[in-house]
Amino acid sequence: MIRTREQYLKALKALKPNIYKNGEQITDVTSHPATKRTVESHARAFDAANDTKFKDLFTATSYFTGNQIMRFNGMMKTLEDIKNNANLKRAMYRFTGTCSGGTCVGWNSQNVMWAITHDMDKEFGTSYQKRLEKWILSAEERGILCAGALTDAKGNRNLKPHQQPDLDTNLRIVERRPDGIVVRGAKVMICGVAASEEIFILPGGAYKDTDADFAVSFVVPRDIDGLTIVEARRPSDDREYSDGWDVPQTGISQGYLLFQDVFIPNERVFMAGEWKYSGKVIEYFTANYRACIGACVAGQGDIMIGAGVLMARANGLSHKKFEDKMLNMSINNETTYGLGVGAMALGGTHASGVWLSDSKTAHLNKVYVATLPYETKRLCQEIGGGIVETGCMPSYKDYNDPKYGELLKKYIKAGDCSAESRLRAARLSEWLTIGAGVPGCMHGGGSPDGAKMVVKAYTPFDQFAEMAKKIAGITEDINEPPAPAKK
Amino acid sequence: MIRTREQYLKALKALKPNIYKNGEQITDVTSHPATKRTVESHARAFDAANDTKFKDLFTATSYFTGNQIMRFNGMMKTLEDIKNNANLKRAMYRFTGTCSGGTCVGWNSQNVMWAITHDMDKEFGTSYQKRLEKWILSAEERGILCAGALTDAKGNRNLKPHQQPDLDTNLRIVERRPDGIVVRGAKVMICGVAASEEIFILPGGAYKDTDADFAVSFVVPRDIDGLTIVEARRPSDDREYSDGWDVPQTGISQGYLLFQDVFIPNERVFMAGEWKYSGKVIEYFTANYRACIGACVAGQGDIMIGAGVLMARANGLSHKKFEDKMLNMSINNETTYGLGVGAMALGGTHASGVWLSDSKTAHLNKVYVATLPYETKRLCQEIGGGIVETGCMPSYKDYNDPKYGELLKKYIKAGDCSAESRLRAARLSEWLTIGAGVPGCMHGGGSPDGAKMVVKAYTPFDQFAEMAKKIAGITEDINEPPAPAKK
Amino acid sequence: MIRTREQYLKALKALKPNIYKNGEQITDVTSHPATKRTVESHARAFDAANDTKFKDLFTATSYFTGNQIMRFNGMMKTLEDIKNNANLKRAMYRFTGTCSGGTCVGWNSQNVMWAITHDMDKEFGTSYQKRLEKWILSAEERGILCAGALTDAKGNRNLKPHQQPDLDTNLRIVERRPDGIVVRGAKVMICGVAASEEIFILPGGAYKDTDADFAVSFVVPRDIDGLTIVEARRPSDDREYSDGWDVPQTGISQGYLLFQDVFIPNERVFMAGEWKYSGKVIEYFTANYRACIGACVAGQGDIMIGAGVLMARANGLSHKKFEDKMLNMSINNETTYGLGVGAMALGGTHASGVWLSDSKTAHLNKVYVATLPYETKRLCQEIGGGIVETGCMPSYKDYNDPKYGELLKKYIKAGDCSAESRLRAARLSEWLTIGAGVPGCMHGGGSPDGAKMVVKAYTPFDQFAEMAKKIAGITEDINEPPAPAKK
Amino acid sequence: MIRTREQYLKALKALKPNIYKNGEQITDVTSHPATKRTVESHARAFDAANDTKFKDLFTATSYFTGNQIMRFNGMMKTLEDIKNNANLKRAMYRFTGTCSGGTCVGWNSQNVMWAITHDMDKEFGTSYQKRLEKWILSAEERGILCAGALTDAKGNRNLKPHQQPDLDTNLRIVERRPDGIVVRGAKVMICGVAASEEIFILPGGAYKDTDADFAVSFVVPRDIDGLTIVEARRPSDDREYSDGWDVPQTGISQGYLLFQDVFIPNERVFMAGEWKYSGKVIEYFTANYRACIGACVAGQGDIMIGAGVLMARANGLSHKKFEDKMLNMSINNETTYGLGVGAMALGGTHASGVWLSDSKTAHLNKVYVATLPYETKRLCQEIGGGIVETGCMPSYKDYNDPKYGELLKKYIKAGDCSAESRLRAARLSEWLTIGAGVPGCMHGGGSPDGAKMVVKAYTPFDQFAEMAKKIAGITEDINEPPAPAKK
Repeated sequence: MIRTREQYLKALKALKPNIYKNGEQITDVTSHPATKRTVESHARAFDAANDTKFKDLFTATSYFTGNQIMRFNGMMKTLEDIKNNANLKRAMYRFTGTCSGGTCVGWNSQNVMWAITHDMDKEFGTSYQKRLEKWILSAEERGILCAGALTDAKGNRNLKPHQQPDLDTNLRIVERRPDGIVVRGAKVMICGVAASEEIFILPGGAYKDTDADFAVSFVVPRDIDGLTIVEARRPSDDREYSDGWDVPQTGISQGYLLFQDVFIPNERVFMAGEWKYSGKVIEYFTANYRACIGACVAGQGDIMIGAGVLMARANGLSHKKFEDKMLNMSINNETTYGLGVGAMALGGTHASGVWLSDSKTAHLNKVYVATLPYETKRLCQEIGGGIVETGCMPSYKDYNDPKYGELLKKYIKAGDCSAESRLRAARLSEWLTIGAGVPGCMHGGGSPDGAKMVVKAYTPFDQFAEMAKKIAGITEDINEPPAPAKK
Repeated sequence: MIRTREQYLKALKALKPNIYKNGEQITDVTSHPATKRTVESHARAFDAANDTKFKDLFTATSYFTGNQIMRFNGMMKTLEDIKNNANLKRAMYRFTGTCSGGTCVGWNSQNVMWAITHDMDKEFGTSYQKRLEKWILSAEERGILCAGALTDAKGNRNLKPHQQPDLDTNLRIVERRPDGIVVRGAKVMICGVAASEEIFILPGGAYKDTDADFAVSFVVPRDIDGLTIVEARRPSDDREYSDGWDVPQTGISQGYLLFQDVFIPNERVFMAGEWKYSGKVIEYFTANYRACIGACVAGQGDIMIGAGVLMARANGLSHKKFEDKMLNMSINNETTYGLGVGAMALGGTHASGVWLSDSKTAHLNKVYVATLPYETKRLCQEIGGGIVETGCMPSYKDYNDPKYGELLKKYIKAGDCSAESRLRAARLSEWLTIGAGVPGCMHGGGSPDGAKMVVKAYTPFDQFAEMAKKIAGITEDINEPPAPAKK
Repeated sequence: MIRTREQYLKALKALKPNIYKNGEQITDVTSHPATKRTVESHARAFDAANDTKFKDLFTATSYFTGNQIMRFNGMMKTLEDIKNNANLKRAMYRFTGTCSGGTCVGWNSQNVMWAITHDMDKEFGTSYQKRLEKWILSAEERGILCAGALTDAKGNRNLKPHQQPDLDTNLRIVERRPDGIVVRGAKVMICGVAASEEIFILPGGAYKDTDADFAVSFVVPRDIDGLTIVEARRPSDDREYSDGWDVPQTGISQGYLLFQDVFIPNERVFMAGEWKYSGKVIEYFTANYRACIGACVAGQGDIMIGAGVLMARANGLSHKKFEDKMLNMSINNETTYGLGVGAMALGGTHASGVWLSDSKTAHLNKVYVATLPYETKRLCQEIGGGIVETGCMPSYKDYNDPKYGELLKKYIKAGDCSAESRLRAARLSEWLTIGAGVPGCMHGGGSPDGAKMVVKAYTPFDQFAEMAKKIAGITEDINEPPAPAKK
Repeated sequence: MIRTREQYLKALKALKPNIYKNGEQITDVTSHPATKRTVESHARAFDAANDTKFKDLFTATSYFTGNQIMRFNGMMKTLEDIKNNANLKRAMYRFTGTCSGGTCVGWNSQNVMWAITHDMDKEFGTSYQKRLEKWILSAEERGILCAGALTDAKGNRNLKPHQQPDLDTNLRIVERRPDGIVVRGAKVMICGVAASEEIFILPGGAYKDTDADFAVSFVVPRDIDGLTIVEARRPSDDREYSDGWDVPQTGISQGYLLFQDVFIPNERVFMAGEWKYSGKVIEYFTANYRACIGACVAGQGDIMIGAGVLMARANGLSHKKFEDKMLNMSINNETTYGLGVGAMALGGTHASGVWLSDSKTAHLNKVYVATLPYETKRLCQEIGGGIVETGCMPSYKDYNDPKYGELLKKYIKAGDCSAESRLRAARLSEWLTIGAGVPGCMHGGGSPDGAKMVVKAYTPFDQFAEMAKKIAGITEDINEPPAPAKK
């Protein structure tokens, strides 16, 4: 089903209030200042699905029913499908300037679990995939937004889940009933939850048998009983409580999901103790996620180029004065986008039918996603000048102050546009580079160090040494030395 | 005179209230949430001056009187003096985590104007230096904090001051009286004003004769009649209005100084129309300022290393796991510090007796100051993990919420310290890298593009070509071609 | 046809001697020290085609005949085909350590000209594609190696071909006969010619009508009458005249092709004056070439990792001591490879049936190809130590000197392998990083500056500004200012 | 004494022939093709000392006698003295395009040993400094060139000297006689030996008591009995045996010094077993050497800028087309120069009177010396185009070939200078970036990894954590965790 923005907002309003921020319960996420911006961001996906210009990208034909569905509810079975995942994400950033996690992680999760349930069912004789199929059909039919959640609270990074002083630091099954499971723990820093209607849960790590209770996957309504959501802060988030242009109308949100003995009925459970496959979940998820995440930062980078053009002109200058910098920004954007597409094209089809990107290249892309956008941000600040760098300008309130507001307008006007437009462009630049619009792309979807480890694991050092030996004409063995002598 | 923190705070309280933020007049800068943090930062300079461990750095012997004075009130005549300017700034960052502009720009300004007044007096027969000496003696005696201001509102970046539609977009002399001058215009994004007692004004650019009225330098009390100061926003500045550890106790401030026909008596005027020397002011100021600014970002980088160590341990890990990253951070810090010292050591003594750093190397250093700290920040975020990257964690209020606060504590605790300490370290990291602690080092003191132009101007391309010709054994002339043919 | 190495060498020997170096005519390229190494390199392609392990990559099924052919004689019509172009090139670098241009440029040229002749025939009613098809069928059948040549002598870079004082500085048609054309000029720095049997000529630039005579494409036997080939130098090329391990047994060659009024019969002419399509040739050629060239430098980088492993062990150390550096090398390799695959996957099928990669991403890849391998080389040198950095070790002759050879062996031995093996690994490292094995990847296939211009041309600055405006809530137009006022 | 070039060459000719290359004994280093270029390089130092324009830099006043001496024979006691060490080295690179090691390492060695002998004499009651003073006086008086040597053959990098299977892999005392010592072993990759008259030997590492026999320092005539010198190869070194412009007239050399039981009389021995001070030798030597080495690569970078200007013009283009690249090159040059001066200025005077640079900053500089010049080289190649990148052009012989030489000239000419000048500029560029002119700056004077370890050792991680704690308001201890649990 393709809903309108209005239908989507109505559905959100109908959910029970279990979200909090700054000690306050949020009764209506669509209007509360802490959440309305992320809701607005996600609503633009529904606008796009109903816009002739964008509907080919935002909708798709269901592989199950042949019906027209929201693209993010569907399956990704071909290179084209996965490229469209990336393209949709880049488009969303171009519409909103930031991350709309509800259009992304749940989508990826359901596809990954399609592959995993296939493998598990084959090995264990379970029927997880049937359950999943039923849920996907329902999601397609309702056209819902479903967030996704992997990251556990984790506790001491030096200890495995079962070694933690508090076992709840990783989400776990505390009870198994005939009709379902009961889970306790927390998923933290989960993006887009406040704008989503359901949440798809994946295990947070690759576990061994000692940690079987942590190998759990399921999907829940956002307002399920026993779930409390605390919204995290983000840079300059208090500004969102005021009116005016000190912050744009779109936004991002991340929540801490606190599960207090929540019951999940069997039909929504897709893994419950099969630790052996938890590593595969991470492997498949990160392969696709890290292939596509380059499109996100590319889309934000596009907006940073645009903000740079605006600032140049608002300062009275041609944007061409900065075209070397803008070219560097464009190079950065297309690098993470293009390398991600490379990762997809080097992947292939899983036995279950879903497309899996190439792990090595996808993780490599994460290394760039964790570095290039920082340079793009720096360049955006360099173009915009001092007021952009740290958003060093008067507030919306001061700008409109009866005593000195006119003086500020007089001194802020520069190029051939109003002082307000100059400030809006500057605030956008601040928001994108050092404000609430900055997405957590370095650690989102896992750390760059983890990504490097994957690249290293896929680099066959010894094979390369053998090739080099042949070219050098070396015939004897050259072996790794024994452990070094003490020094 | 060496005052105590208490004496300094008392002096601030005694100033007339002419500072505003968010439409509100700030009656006491030492206690108002918008300014108390920058005041706290500056107060630590007075603590240091009275601390046996730091007083050698924070105090000095007056070249005029032989009395013990605050170092930032004195003259810089030797390589040692200018190195101590850098060292004091690095120390201030280590005490506060951010910029205390009141200890820095005014100090540099008085030294630069010492050289300029010497040159002007010699050429024009004026007696500016005597006026300046008198003021310096008074400043030394009172031990005051004096901010400094160069940056004008500027208006259209494509037009010179006298070409602007509104002549006031650059601060200018609107009237010359027998006993002084009257000035109108704005100095914008001026650091540390709210914590300072006086403000040293320099011309904002290198002017020609058509712009003589803009070539003006003087010093005023912060609360002089006709001056209105509007504090600029900074990232996450609204948090400073709440209690708790969502932001540290120190801070930075930047103000917009609105001069509405302010009268400056002659004894405080050090340039009034001598446009020919306005370029020299910029040249001397930037040479010393950009040589020393590397110490600022180094000092903040030191704190980022420290924050990284804390975060590692708070996550249960040894900081050694991240020592490559920390080493890179250290390399960045020592690069801007050491290259700045190189610029100083390649400089020399001006005829007036003050030390001037080498322009080429100082501007080169600015290129690094505009880039390396961004990498240092990125590394600090990489070490700290997801909660650091965008400060993605619950607020102080949520942490203490009676309903779910305990749950948050349970899930935030990780290593062998309290959840609160982990959050404090994470908030510090956010504040340093994407919060109110980020100083505007890229554009502060001028843009990196301007710096590169100086380096280019000092690179003798043709001489290098001649040297290359000799080594290559080329004897004919190889000339620059005529202007290119149309394509 | 799939020939053996022996058949290939025999074919080379049968060619007329028109190649020179150091004033000497090379009568047998397979045994002359100046050319035997590049011949050995190319011969390994025939070994691979006859090796069960590699034949799937090195051979293919003809789209025309269904026969098994050398892959580099065939058409590239699918994403898989073009990926295999990249894979074959990477494999060749892994076999030889360097560039085997004869397996690459001619192959790409024939595919590009397949598309161009299609377009020209459609517009002009010519029948170029038929001619080309006939030649391709013959090439497939014979299984020949065909080099490719674009780069003209060019003359003054500021002038167009017809403006040059000497019109011959770009290869041109000097006579048009009923049965063919006569061409004069030079193609310079052409790779792999000495090991090839034919040479495919493309126009060297995008021409206008004034330069129609330079818009010419054809294919010639390497030993055609009127063609003189002078081999260029390369680093340490004189060593190739001596025995021993001062240089490996494989190698690269680049020639200056001097065309002195060479007659080309019509059936081998594929463009003769159609200037309008010369730009398309460059566009299509560079799109595919720059998508695939990342695989070349990746393959060489693989060998550099291998050489690093050997050097570490030859010095008595585990290669793990250098694994961060090796990981960086691997990241660089996979970046140019993966981004190239991204460019392919973002491309599509031309109306003629051949696959064309995405220009923007392919040119972007060239930017990396022109930078990352330099870092990889530096890392290889850093791992190898001082003797690798500039190949600072005794010559093969000194190593075997009766007077002091034993002393050298005594002092050169380090780890658990012979002194000779250590020297061979070091010489390989030198050869790869600062010797005759360094391919000209920065300017080969065009300059990185040209590549950046393409990326810039594909970046829609104004569209990005419009998107940014929407997010910032700016409703007025913000236009490019008029040309700047004089300063 | 200030000798002329002629006096210097005569002195070299008078030495006994103990140098070999390619199995051949070199009887006259001033005319033999393998060594005449490095001799020419060093001879230019004597030209400069007799040139009014440069004599202030190349000569100095002896601290001992007040006589005018070659600067590189004298003591460095002030910041000015050590800056002039750097300036002289930069000048030598500008004269020669490459490294003249004979003007540098011996000079630094004698100064370092002045400090070390002071300390040893004080602790052990020896009179090493008197011996050294006598030798310095003699060197000053004779105005000789003295190379310096630290690097041992080393053997297995995993073993200490006394653990090596062959004890000779590090130079050692094999016999102690009343009148002197006998040494055996090798110093390898020693720069400028062929152009020097004496060689100053330092220990190659920081040793413990078990390795006392390796802690040895002395100075010998280059042609001392028992010393055999084998010249190492360098890129394209065989070209130096031919005439023409395929290589410039200046050059570098590095030798393997084979000591076969060489007797050193006491008056030339400055350390003989005092292992405790061997580490100090390394510390002091590297501090000064790595502070100054930035000037070397800066000087070579200056020539690369010049070569870039020549190539641009020889191609018919203004050098301004490449000014961004040239500015980057200049930035790199001034970075290593300026940071080195910073290291000097952060140093101070040793108790013995000599100036010691700051270790941390000097080693930091080495990190840049091991990276930035690679970028400068890349840029030089990027400016010069394809013929520069790998020197891909015809040889001098081919250029003058009667059959096709004229054709080559026709096609090589481009801008407004002769084809020969264009080739000379291109060959210079090749020689500087990938030829015999490339100095071994990455490993010369020790590896960058070693340098980073020093920077790390000087970074007070825990102090920074304490500072960060104060700013964050953390009061509890946050300690390093215990060793990680097994995973």
